Amino acid sequence: MNYDAARVLGGDQRAISRLMTMLERRDPSAAFAMKELDAYTGRAYTIGITGPPGVGKSTLVDRFTEHLRNLDLTVGIIAVDPDSPYTGGAILGDRIRMQRHFLDPSVYIRSVSTRGQSGGLPRIVKSLVRLLDAAGMDVILVETVGVGQTELGIMNVADTVIVALMPESGDSIQTLKAGVLEIADIFLVNKADREGADRMAAAMRAMLHTVSEPADWQPTVLLTQADRGAGIPELWEAVSSHRSYMNDSAQCGGFSPVDDRRSERRRQEFLESLQEELNQLVKTQIENNPTLQSMLDDVANGKLEPYSAAVELLKDGAPLRFRFLTDQEVSPA
Amino acid sequence: MNYDAARVLGGDQRAISRLMTMLERRDPSAAFAMKELDAYTGRAYTIGITGPPGVGKSTLVDRFTEHLRNLDLTVGIIAVDPDSPYTGGAILGDRIRMQRHFLDPSVYIRSVSTRGQSGGLPRIVKSLVRLLDAAGMDVILVETVGVGQTELGIMNVADTVIVALMPESGDSIQTLKAGVLEIADIFLVNKADREGADRMAAAMRAMLHTVSEPADWQPTVLLTQADRGAGIPELWEAVSSHRSYMNDSAQCGGFSPVDDRRSERRRQEFLESLQEELNQLVKTQIENNPTLQSMLDDVANGKLEPYSAAVELLKDGAPLRFRFLTDQEVSPA
Repeated sequence: MNYDAARVLGGDQRAISRLMTMLERRDPSAAFAMKELDAYTGRAYTIGITGPPGVGKSTLVDRFTEHLRNLDLTVGIIAVDPDSPYTGGAILGDRIRMQRHFLDPSVYIRSVSTRGQSGGLPRIVKSLVRLLDAAGMDVILVETVGVGQTELGIMNVADTVIVALMPESGDSIQTLKAGVLEIADIFLVNKADREGADRMAAAMRAMLHTVSEPADWQPTVLLTQADRGAGIPELWEAVSSHRSYMNDSAQCGGFSPVDDRRSERRRQEFLESLQEELNQLVKTQIENNPTLQSMLDDVANGKLEPYSAAVELLKDGAPLRFRFLTDQEVSPA
Repeated sequence: MNYDAARVLGGDQRAISRLMTMLERRDPSAAFAMKELDAYTGRAYTIGITGPPGVGKSTLVDRFTEHLRNLDLTVGIIAVDPDSPYTGGAILGDRIRMQRHFLDPSVYIRSVSTRGQSGGLPRIVKSLVRLLDAAGMDVILVETVGVGQTELGIMNVADTVIVALMPESGDSIQTLKAGVLEIADIFLVNKADREGADRMAAAMRAMLHTVSEPADWQPTVLLTQADRGAGIPELWEAVSSHRSYMNDSAQCGGFSPVDDRRSERRRQEFLESLQEELNQLVKTQIENNPTLQSMLDDVANGKLEPYSAAVELLKDGAPLRFRFLTDQEVSPA
């Protein structure tokens, strides 16, 4: 597979898809491509949308995309799917609802599975966001299902985080842990035609008032009915004012909050990539190491206890102690 | 913290809890303890229970435990909680329902969070199961919430896997992917008083008939109403016949399926522990490596592209190439 920088930079959907696949397969030339494209990033604005299953996130993304297209903005969408056996069908259904945007050359849609990945948001999402940024998308939407850790990871990829809830979650305000309160820049009460929506929004506002510092961004609480498109222009307005706040360079001693978040994001992408590459190396080395292979057999047949065997293998002075090599060890004088 | 082997082997709850905490904190003496206890494992029978949120798993576990206690069996329970901001409250509520068993010295209950762990079932669950086995539990129940990968991991820890569904999941049969069909030894349609339960069970049976090999275990489909205790004795019967099948040594050329599963489980626990210990070492080495620290700064400020920087750092001949050291390198002649 090869990669065409000019076509990616020009927003060509096939070229973008090809490079994304290269990244997913850890094709060595993907690293080269990312390096080359990095100079063209920094212009897109990334919005994360998360919330529990069934809250209507996909419909929100669909209607929000429609609104952004009416404003003549190009949109990249990354849908992070848990690929759960239980929700697989539902997710497929959601994607079908997005179908009308699939034919629009100014909307790029990609699904990323969390299956087989480590917990939290897959590392690759950060790379894909930068790729879509280089490809000239004005707005990038990252949608995650709020189960487990993935939704907390969204703040490490988005400039603005939207948390969507709905009235029927009933006790959901009480069960919202501090983690989610802290990551949300905008709260949506979707399906606002259902009973209890206003009460829920009022309770949210009251609670946010008690927890946030006056100097910080005060999270907005909005009511939406995504299926009818109600509240969508207001959502874009709320995002836009959060964006102004994020771009205000007086906030963090000369750096704007958005610069701050993006630097931290790059740092994390580097560390996560390093961890991933190391895990691959370890895997290969285990497969090719005869000592480890015979230990595995002893562990399986009960001669060795699994946990202590692993711990002992790596303690100081043990034969399979590993470390980064020094320059001298790599190329001895 | 110290550990008292005799008290753990005698099933003393405080001693078990102390050792579990040591394992969670990666206390070095926990590895020693696990090594010592390994000889006393192999007697307990481990049952995994998984299913989507709201299906009534905790009530099932509660009633099932009651049944096992009436048969005078000791029970260890490991509840794997996603620790989701959205379901935190619900989980707490579930645990409260289990309260009556907390006072029973023959029932040991422990919650394990998946937060901060890699995807799938946390590695530590495998160690905890062996610990409860050594502590003399007759039956160990591992409960996971079926979202994402965790429920597929349950088959790597349980001798019998129960997948619980309910009629209202409506289209849940269609959305059950092959993965879940393959891991389930017993299917429950819980909340069987609700409309569509019989139809769902019949559809499950029909589908299972088309996918399973005649020589294999034919998954059982049962109707339960856990809140009334209905179907619980039948569940234990179904588990018992699966257990007989699993213990039949004619199955895999002299080895019983249960031996086979347990060997594979030990192998995986070793590999996962090794990966975990390595990740810890890498973390420490990154924190203390000046080259890496200055690279991190360059990545953050945009001088280096995050992904390619990580990839290049580890390729052949690169200064931070790492590998397991050979005996000679560890103790040069």
